[in-house]
Amino acid sequence: MTRQPTVGLIGLGTMGSNLALNIAENGFDIAVYNRTVERTHEFVENAGKLKEKLIGTDSLEEFVAALKSPRKIILMVPAGKVVDDQIAALRPLIAPEDIIIDAGNANFGDSNRRAAEAVDKGFRFLGVGVSGGEEGARFGPSIMGGGPREAWDEVAPVLEAISAKYDGQACATWMGEGGAGHFVKMVHNGIEYADMQMIAEVYGILRDGMNMSAPDIADIFAKWNEGPLQSYLIEISAEVSKVIDDKAGVPILDIILDKAGQKGTGRWTAIEAQHLGTPVTTIEAAVAARNISANLDQRKSGEDLFGAAPSMVQDASITIDMLENALLAGKIACYAQGFDMLSAASEKYEWGLPMPDVAEVWRAGCIIRSAMLNDMAEALKKAPGANLMFASFFAERLKSSHGDLRRVVSQGALTGNSTPALSAGLAYFDMMRTGRSTANMIQAQRDFFGAHTFERIDEEGAHNGPWNGTDK
Amino acid sequence: MTRQPTVGLIGLGTMGSNLALNIAENGFDIAVYNRTVERTHEFVENAGKLKEKLIGTDSLEEFVAALKSPRKIILMVPAGKVVDDQIAALRPLIAPEDIIIDAGNANFGDSNRRAAEAVDKGFRFLGVGVSGGEEGARFGPSIMGGGPREAWDEVAPVLEAISAKYDGQACATWMGEGGAGHFVKMVHNGIEYADMQMIAEVYGILRDGMNMSAPDIADIFAKWNEGPLQSYLIEISAEVSKVIDDKAGVPILDIILDKAGQKGTGRWTAIEAQHLGTPVTTIEAAVAARNISANLDQRKSGEDLFGAAPSMVQDASITIDMLENALLAGKIACYAQGFDMLSAASEKYEWGLPMPDVAEVWRAGCIIRSAMLNDMAEALKKAPGANLMFASFFAERLKSSHGDLRRVVSQGALTGNSTPALSAGLAYFDMMRTGRSTANMIQAQRDFFGAHTFERIDEEGAHNGPWNGTDK
Repeated sequence: MTRQPTVGLIGLGTMGSNLALNIAENGFDIAVYNRTVERTHEFVENAGKLKEKLIGTDSLEEFVAALKSPRKIILMVPAGKVVDDQIAALRPLIAPEDIIIDAGNANFGDSNRRAAEAVDKGFRFLGVGVSGGEEGARFGPSIMGGGPREAWDEVAPVLEAISAKYDGQACATWMGEGGAGHFVKMVHNGIEYADMQMIAEVYGILRDGMNMSAPDIADIFAKWNEGPLQSYLIEISAEVSKVIDDKAGVPILDIILDKAGQKGTGRWTAIEAQHLGTPVTTIEAAVAARNISANLDQRKSGEDLFGAAPSMVQDASITIDMLENALLAGKIACYAQGFDMLSAASEKYEWGLPMPDVAEVWRAGCIIRSAMLNDMAEALKKAPGANLMFASFFAERLKSSHGDLRRVVSQGALTGNSTPALSAGLAYFDMMRTGRSTANMIQAQRDFFGAHTFERIDEEGAHNGPWNGTDK
Repeated sequence: MTRQPTVGLIGLGTMGSNLALNIAENGFDIAVYNRTVERTHEFVENAGKLKEKLIGTDSLEEFVAALKSPRKIILMVPAGKVVDDQIAALRPLIAPEDIIIDAGNANFGDSNRRAAEAVDKGFRFLGVGVSGGEEGARFGPSIMGGGPREAWDEVAPVLEAISAKYDGQACATWMGEGGAGHFVKMVHNGIEYADMQMIAEVYGILRDGMNMSAPDIADIFAKWNEGPLQSYLIEISAEVSKVIDDKAGVPILDIILDKAGQKGTGRWTAIEAQHLGTPVTTIEAAVAARNISANLDQRKSGEDLFGAAPSMVQDASITIDMLENALLAGKIACYAQGFDMLSAASEKYEWGLPMPDVAEVWRAGCIIRSAMLNDMAEALKKAPGANLMFASFFAERLKSSHGDLRRVVSQGALTGNSTPALSAGLAYFDMMRTGRSTANMIQAQRDFFGAHTFERIDEEGAHNGPWNGTDK
């Protein structure tokens, strides 16, 4: 066989297989390797006409030998120790100009570390976040790159070819050094948690507050998907809401158990935001809601003890249009938090994150893709450092929608149809437009019990209150 | 000098000095050492009649020689590397039966590590959380111990003597091995953040929603301090609200800048809660509110852009009594989250935390001390594992107060007087009493885009929806 590509991929699970087929379909020959050799054979055999682009290899040595330098070796193996082990196994076999690309679900801290180790050990490493699930991997994901810029530039033709496109523009972008790509991917996932939770909260008001059926709710989501809320998550919310379960003969939503799973990226986002000191309260609310949902037995005890929340059907004050506006306003607040966190990380890690590019790379291929992200990219181009809520386009949207967010949160609070993420979004908006907050009370308390000092509005410096001289 | 005590203290900052005086005043001779020798001399000279109990030492060698074994050496030095350095410097000088007690503001993870290292290196280590600020250290703090039980038992007579008392019972308790004491102290501080934030939110509604003056607000807090909200934080909120600033001639609250500081323990609590998967949304809201308050310039821009929140004075629907009940209900939700987090940590770290003792040790001496903690201790004795909101005493309180929490959160949302922590507390309560949540929507979405599977309400096992067979 005379073909000797530069691109290879290790790890033929669902994501890895789909990514390899995507690469092959875009005209690149690609060597593949999997720990279990049978899986490699099966994968190549079943690749149909793409088989001719694939070179199956049975050992790591054979895999490396099948590639010519500078090799571009994509790892799609489980995050954590497996990645480190795979890199250690590859190192003796590869040349200094070769590039190892971790395209798995790595924690950005690991990618930071691996990038630094690669410099020490004399090879090139990219940490690349890939979003879009199985379908995205196969037909066009959103790709967020991190590591040395020149290594990215060498790999970019492949990654841009396989990525999702928005108006012909590839959703594959270099974000910065080290773990920048995986960091951006993590924040994407955090936003995804909040986006999903806000949709679930509105679904709850429709279902429990207004006693609507899942198919009726599907129609509402489908209609919203033609307006400013247009997004993949609204689209699939309509899809899942309309499906009738074969076995039970009722909407499948109604037989799905209400205990939410999670893989940890929402939690990572919340933790990193705490380290950065940036508020991502909508994401925290979403993670908490998933955690609380898992306590099914306790929740049932609680309902027995306190009674279920009453419906708000008798109260006609909340309309479908209000819910649409509430979701819109909540979503803007959520994204403002996410981009604010990215700005803080960019400064801390000296990444120089290209904020408009972040919004652009999310416009297609990934789970949070939406029409609104194009508007966000435009807003961030005009004012990269500003809070998204203050950009004129979104400020106008908020002016026309925050009133409805208030009404929905207010009614939810009164009736017990909980809206933790929407409430957090509203509180964030209100705190960010309050020139005189109540933190003066907190500063007074802190100074009273701990002599932590406070600043004054009328002069410079750190001050203590007269209570410190008193006999306590 | 023939006195040779077993108790010594290193680090004569404000907290260390006060703790040493407290120990001396309780009849114990104590050797003290400070890196800056002048500080030691000054401290001993100014100790008044307690001077006779103090043995000032000028070197670490002299300090250790002044003590007889088993030595009980209290460190009150800055958390982090300084503690490790101090332990390293002491080790060659001390005997295996000696006990080093870190009474500073350590991260519980460091205390876990130091406890394990002490076992390896052959000495005894206690990580002890001390709460109560300067005044507490001097006249009776709340003390939460962690480390080997038998070491605690040897030190307990001193720590119990100097601790705060509640009905004659010492607020100094062994919580468990390793970092258990510092963990409990950390959660104490997290709750403190939420408690303070909820008070600040109610203060905001009184000030901005009802246009009340600080002295009038002081009267309200003072009155509440005679009812179920009785607590140190309500007491000092009344105190700081009534003070008139000498220079400006207006209430001092009105000239204190509204940018809240923090030392990080609230953030630690939020991060550890994420690791444990337990929701502490009231604490997260409080940390976020402090972070947001620091963005003063942005907040002012936001106010210019969107206008200030209108007052609610024209809306007479919120009364002072409603605010009292709202604060009560929010506080119960907040403590339920804190104790739930402690339960989860106790299980993860195998500490066997004595939950009623935690509530008891917080009844006096510490910042969150309150009448309600005695009721919590009683409730936790009856049902140590149950959510505090479900304990009959607090369930009854919630039944009679959650309606007012709803009204306050609802009005705050409508008018823009933000109540993030109270809202988070309400949402937590509502989610914990909802037998059928909206997490089924989230599970459907996750299965649609990621084939993550879901459980069904009508049969066992992991299932995929029919959308996975569709051509996407």
